[in-house]
Amino acid sequence: MRTGVWLVGARGSVATTSIVGGLALRAGLAGSTGCVTELPDLRGPALPAFADLVFGGHDVATTPLCKRAEALADAGVIPWRLVAALRDELGAVEQELRPAPVGATQADRAAAVVRDLTAFRERHELDRVVVVNVSATEPAPQPHPGHADPAALSAALAGPDEVLPVSSLYAYAAVLAGCPYVDFTPSTGLRLPALAALAEEARLPYAGHDGKTGETLVKSVLAPMFAMRNLDVRSWSGFNLLGGGDGATLADPAANAAKVQSKQRVLGETLGYVPQGGTRIEYVEELGDFKTAWDLITFAGFLGTGMRMEFTWHGCDSALAAPLVLDLARLTAAAHAAGLVGPLTELGFFFKDPIGSPTHSLGEQWARLTDFTRHLHTGGNGDHGNVG
Amino acid sequence: MRTGVWLVGARGSVATTSIVGGLALRAGLAGSTGCVTELPDLRGPALPAFADLVFGGHDVATTPLCKRAEALADAGVIPWRLVAALRDELGAVEQELRPAPVGATQADRAAAVVRDLTAFRERHELDRVVVVNVSATEPAPQPHPGHADPAALSAALAGPDEVLPVSSLYAYAAVLAGCPYVDFTPSTGLRLPALAALAEEARLPYAGHDGKTGETLVKSVLAPMFAMRNLDVRSWSGFNLLGGGDGATLADPAANAAKVQSKQRVLGETLGYVPQGGTRIEYVEELGDFKTAWDLITFAGFLGTGMRMEFTWHGCDSALAAPLVLDLARLTAAAHAAGLVGPLTELGFFFKDPIGSPTHSLGEQWARLTDFTRHLHTGGNGDHGNVG
Amino acid sequence: MRTGVWLVGARGSVATTSIVGGLALRAGLAGSTGCVTELPDLRGPALPAFADLVFGGHDVATTPLCKRAEALADAGVIPWRLVAALRDELGAVEQELRPAPVGATQADRAAAVVRDLTAFRERHELDRVVVVNVSATEPAPQPHPGHADPAALSAALAGPDEVLPVSSLYAYAAVLAGCPYVDFTPSTGLRLPALAALAEEARLPYAGHDGKTGETLVKSVLAPMFAMRNLDVRSWSGFNLLGGGDGATLADPAANAAKVQSKQRVLGETLGYVPQGGTRIEYVEELGDFKTAWDLITFAGFLGTGMRMEFTWHGCDSALAAPLVLDLARLTAAAHAAGLVGPLTELGFFFKDPIGSPTHSLGEQWARLTDFTRHLHTGGNGDHGNVG
Amino acid sequence: MRTGVWLVGARGSVATTSIVGGLALRAGLAGSTGCVTELPDLRGPALPAFADLVFGGHDVATTPLCKRAEALADAGVIPWRLVAALRDELGAVEQELRPAPVGATQADRAAAVVRDLTAFRERHELDRVVVVNVSATEPAPQPHPGHADPAALSAALAGPDEVLPVSSLYAYAAVLAGCPYVDFTPSTGLRLPALAALAEEARLPYAGHDGKTGETLVKSVLAPMFAMRNLDVRSWSGFNLLGGGDGATLADPAANAAKVQSKQRVLGETLGYVPQGGTRIEYVEELGDFKTAWDLITFAGFLGTGMRMEFTWHGCDSALAAPLVLDLARLTAAAHAAGLVGPLTELGFFFKDPIGSPTHSLGEQWARLTDFTRHLHTGGNGDHGNVG
Repeated sequence: MRTGVWLVGARGSVATTSIVGGLALRAGLAGSTGCVTELPDLRGPALPAFADLVFGGHDVATTPLCKRAEALADAGVIPWRLVAALRDELGAVEQELRPAPVGATQADRAAAVVRDLTAFRERHELDRVVVVNVSATEPAPQPHPGHADPAALSAALAGPDEVLPVSSLYAYAAVLAGCPYVDFTPSTGLRLPALAALAEEARLPYAGHDGKTGETLVKSVLAPMFAMRNLDVRSWSGFNLLGGGDGATLADPAANAAKVQSKQRVLGETLGYVPQGGTRIEYVEELGDFKTAWDLITFAGFLGTGMRMEFTWHGCDSALAAPLVLDLARLTAAAHAAGLVGPLTELGFFFKDPIGSPTHSLGEQWARLTDFTRHLHTGGNGDHGNVG
Repeated sequence: MRTGVWLVGARGSVATTSIVGGLALRAGLAGSTGCVTELPDLRGPALPAFADLVFGGHDVATTPLCKRAEALADAGVIPWRLVAALRDELGAVEQELRPAPVGATQADRAAAVVRDLTAFRERHELDRVVVVNVSATEPAPQPHPGHADPAALSAALAGPDEVLPVSSLYAYAAVLAGCPYVDFTPSTGLRLPALAALAEEARLPYAGHDGKTGETLVKSVLAPMFAMRNLDVRSWSGFNLLGGGDGATLADPAANAAKVQSKQRVLGETLGYVPQGGTRIEYVEELGDFKTAWDLITFAGFLGTGMRMEFTWHGCDSALAAPLVLDLARLTAAAHAAGLVGPLTELGFFFKDPIGSPTHSLGEQWARLTDFTRHLHTGGNGDHGNVG
Repeated sequence: MRTGVWLVGARGSVATTSIVGGLALRAGLAGSTGCVTELPDLRGPALPAFADLVFGGHDVATTPLCKRAEALADAGVIPWRLVAALRDELGAVEQELRPAPVGATQADRAAAVVRDLTAFRERHELDRVVVVNVSATEPAPQPHPGHADPAALSAALAGPDEVLPVSSLYAYAAVLAGCPYVDFTPSTGLRLPALAALAEEARLPYAGHDGKTGETLVKSVLAPMFAMRNLDVRSWSGFNLLGGGDGATLADPAANAAKVQSKQRVLGETLGYVPQGGTRIEYVEELGDFKTAWDLITFAGFLGTGMRMEFTWHGCDSALAAPLVLDLARLTAAAHAAGLVGPLTELGFFFKDPIGSPTHSLGEQWARLTDFTRHLHTGGNGDHGNVG
Repeated sequence: MRTGVWLVGARGSVATTSIVGGLALRAGLAGSTGCVTELPDLRGPALPAFADLVFGGHDVATTPLCKRAEALADAGVIPWRLVAALRDELGAVEQELRPAPVGATQADRAAAVVRDLTAFRERHELDRVVVVNVSATEPAPQPHPGHADPAALSAALAGPDEVLPVSSLYAYAAVLAGCPYVDFTPSTGLRLPALAALAEEARLPYAGHDGKTGETLVKSVLAPMFAMRNLDVRSWSGFNLLGGGDGATLADPAANAAKVQSKQRVLGETLGYVPQGGTRIEYVEELGDFKTAWDLITFAGFLGTGMRMEFTWHGCDSALAAPLVLDLARLTAAAHAAGLVGPLTELGFFFKDPIGSPTHSLGEQWARLTDFTRHLHTGGNGDHGNVG
């Protein structure tokens, strides 16, 4: 099952790490640490092999992929030996990267993306191409009447307006090209009624939003712990310090707001009430691709006794995100092959703000994910209702 | 369903907090924070009401219960207003406390405990009495041939030897008196072949060992998180600082060893491998009834990138343990009423070192616990095989 | 040497703790922990005894002092036994508290304050009254031509404008009444050219600004450590969570900005460069009178090796500030008695933003403070140039 | 002033980093971050230039210096570019390294070391050679009558006994060869009456013990902070996790005990009382050359209010120690050139367990160090009494 992985934001840290890692796995130069689809509970015949993944993508930046990989090696994100060993393979992927599309209208630019996707699929004789958005976080877009339904959207895109935010323009093109779509960021992507309707019409599955890689991952096991023990969480305050490209983007208050909202949702939905405190994101360039998050949780136990917990998470977002990008490409490809359509709510395990997921608890999400893959491997489709 | 709760170590911090809390709940003076049996997923008709719990117990100490409660109020563990409001009720429980049993042989002392338990049950017309061990941690006992089976045990106890450690002598007496038994400590308790066989013969359920209240509770959600994400935990080092009675006991290297072993088990069994590092327990008198644990976890992600997490837990063990003691008394009473016999493996949620539990993951333990209580409330007994 | 301590903001947490503590020291009910003037290097005959301090003050709030003390006891800031033992003494201080002054113009209101101060001094036959501002932090004031010199100020105050921020109106009145003045807050207080000139004319000493009690105290020893070791501090990020009255005030962005600026100054001035990162203050009501600060410092050592340090400070601001208020009242009274005039730069030890202090290093500030008190005790006045 | 730096333990991490760093400074390839002798308050004409330092040493290990440097580059301690650029220079130093001395008696082995030192000095036409012990920590030695005075020592060394621990045998040889001596470790080194007397006779200065590079460095500013604020430190507990060669050595309980004692001294001597709690050292191989220390400090403020501070230090010991080794070589060489004799107590700034230092406060040590260097640069010798 030859599967294309088309990365929107293909020269970014997450994409570059995904590509280097995917190539290293194919070449047997690295293990699958961090790839959940290689765990005994998940792996199986329905998933494309790492060796069957072919990479391509778009990016507005033009830095050669090899340079980006070298910079990540310098920053301690990936080992130098892999960059050295994979120069030829990276050069081959370089040939599959395309600049941002041009055109007078958004319709024109979407058509250009469709052409790129279709040509990629045909050139490599791929069974399918999964489009994954790993580009920088966008601010929340202005509402537009064209977001409401496919007809309105189609009409609006032909005009001069910037109807769709960029993430959604790529999602739109993916659907037109018949590609399943994954949104790894908090951007709008496919989350507009018009796009969801188009995906249903095209019988495509999709997944999102916002990869759960650090502080929120920890929250998604600690919040259920407090809830299961009936402890009264009085306040939960988080402070995220991050450098790198994403940090600079999030220093923009609008993007920051989108991200913070996504991060706090887990608490209210898991605890059933919203504790005091909030989450802050600050840009500290010097931290580079690493991120430090500190959280303070104050809680009351039996008879009101006050207690507290704090944690510091010091993680490398690219190293945490990249294997999940490969996992999501494999799982979404398998779902497409199985004829599943619409939001893949069973992939909530991967996301801060999971579409249609009934829970933010990592343990419950895991149970749903293992059920889902078991059905994929055995040819059933479980209780996923939207089979094509 | 009038239920006795007989506390071994009845004047200790955990027992005193349990008693004050139980009385406060009965009087409507406090809420049920920390009691998991009051969560929507667990509560129901099979459990005795808080108002139906009657307290008694043994202790070698003689400090009046009221004085112990005042000391805990001074230490910030329970509110002064509850101690003031519950003086009469605490005085009534004082009448139900008994000193350590006397007698020439362990058989004599066990018989004295049986008399205390039987008299308590009859005096208060109780449907049953659950015996809960909340006394200080013992060192691991010397092996003795009498531990092997009921006949050998009975013969040995009539002689002059100290055949059983104290925790096990109480467990033995509980079984003789027909009382379900819970071990909230890492001591031996009912964990001897002879005692397990006697409990089966007497058609009694039992539960244990070692209440999961702090650092290990956190480990039991974080370790599964690392496992579910296929992250490679390289080291996990823990440092526990505790004052109070338990701290002083654990400063004894033998008791410390028992506790530490119990605390590390969760890692090996959840991750499938044992990371570097260990757990240390230190006594710092000044911390009183509060405990501070610091853990450092180093782990590798995709392509070997090194990352780290640390957490500090600052908890009050008595305030965390006491509501679980009430929960366990209610659940074990309900299990006894339902005719269940033998180890209640579905109560693994409560313990660091759960008897017969197939998992140390809090999420999985929670799923088993909610199944179990659902069956209790609906009159079924689930897949618990040992029904009497 | 009978000394009045007149607290602006006399019913606040810091003032109430100062009063309870001062009364407790006088009554021999508490030790002098936290009072630096009782250390062997500082104590001596020039300082008024605790027993010679008489308390009074202004406040816009009207909650009785006893109620405030009880609330602080409930919050764990002061012991209940002191509140119980000092009810009569607190009642006596209650008689010395005055509401905010009224009057048509700021000149009228200043005159009312002068009358309150003068009457207090005469009523208790005090040698002098030290006015200490411990009221809530103000936003930075609008510039006004009246701030420039005494004549312009006097003219402006007679008009309808709010010429001075409230903290400065009290400072102005203190000077008019011949009282030395201490500003324990980051508010403007005496920091206006017109007021400084008036204090010189009145031959009065004064001290400030902004008591150094928590995160900044720690910074003022850690930053010199990095500097003395020639380590390259790359980033220093701080996150302050605080409840209580001060927290709510600081949630106001304008007041927050004043405070944050004061907190960061120590880094630039000690290191000689400003590292990346900033300081955040967040209000978390649930933390009450306690404050938690977390700081992350990343630094490079020899050959560029990256390292990091983090600390968490969990302090009670009132308990840290109150003894310093007593220290400052004693030291400023002694300086006045010794005829010193103008800014007491040798008291930089106590402040985040010390007037005229050449250093933010706690160690260097300590050396200057011990020199200063040695001179006071031996009757010399050191190199303090402005002797009257 | 051509100065030899003879490293005992010359192939260890600290020595290798010192050599690479010294060569990089000479070649202008690195800055002097971490070198305190390059701070404006300390630098001056009395110190030998980095370019005048010539490296040699002993080691029982035989791994080539270049291999050791590569391993440190792999571990993130030194940059790869320096190892690549300095291959020739490292090869030259390799020629100056000698294996452990052989000989039938300790006297023979000392004589062999003296020959190595003398030959090194003559071969490179050095003004002097400073011997610096950076070898692994030894257990405390057995007492021996030969330790008492030079005559007894000389007699004993000619016999078959292991009279001196290895660190002291090198110190003895250094003195015989007329070399000033620095002990950067907690081992015995020159700390024996016989050796101190010999150093006086030989008119040599010496310094030690145990470089202050991490947790103790932080303690030496935080403990004075608590003392200067008259806060009551109730407990101070430390937990050190370290990998690398030193970690493995310290896992040996005897060496551990020596180190821990050295680390706790600062508290008792600075605070005037010993708080509860202790320091633990644990070996966690995975941490490599990095070390993580966590300290919890509980303290009481005014009226007994309980508060707490915790810090985590994540440092690279070699990167912290190496520049101090260069500093100490320069300072001790300058002291020797100035004719100073005996313990250089003014170098207490550098050590956990400073010989003859009246204080453990970093700030006070800094004041003494800057005085000392000012005198060296201006040709005076301050209050250092033992001038030759």
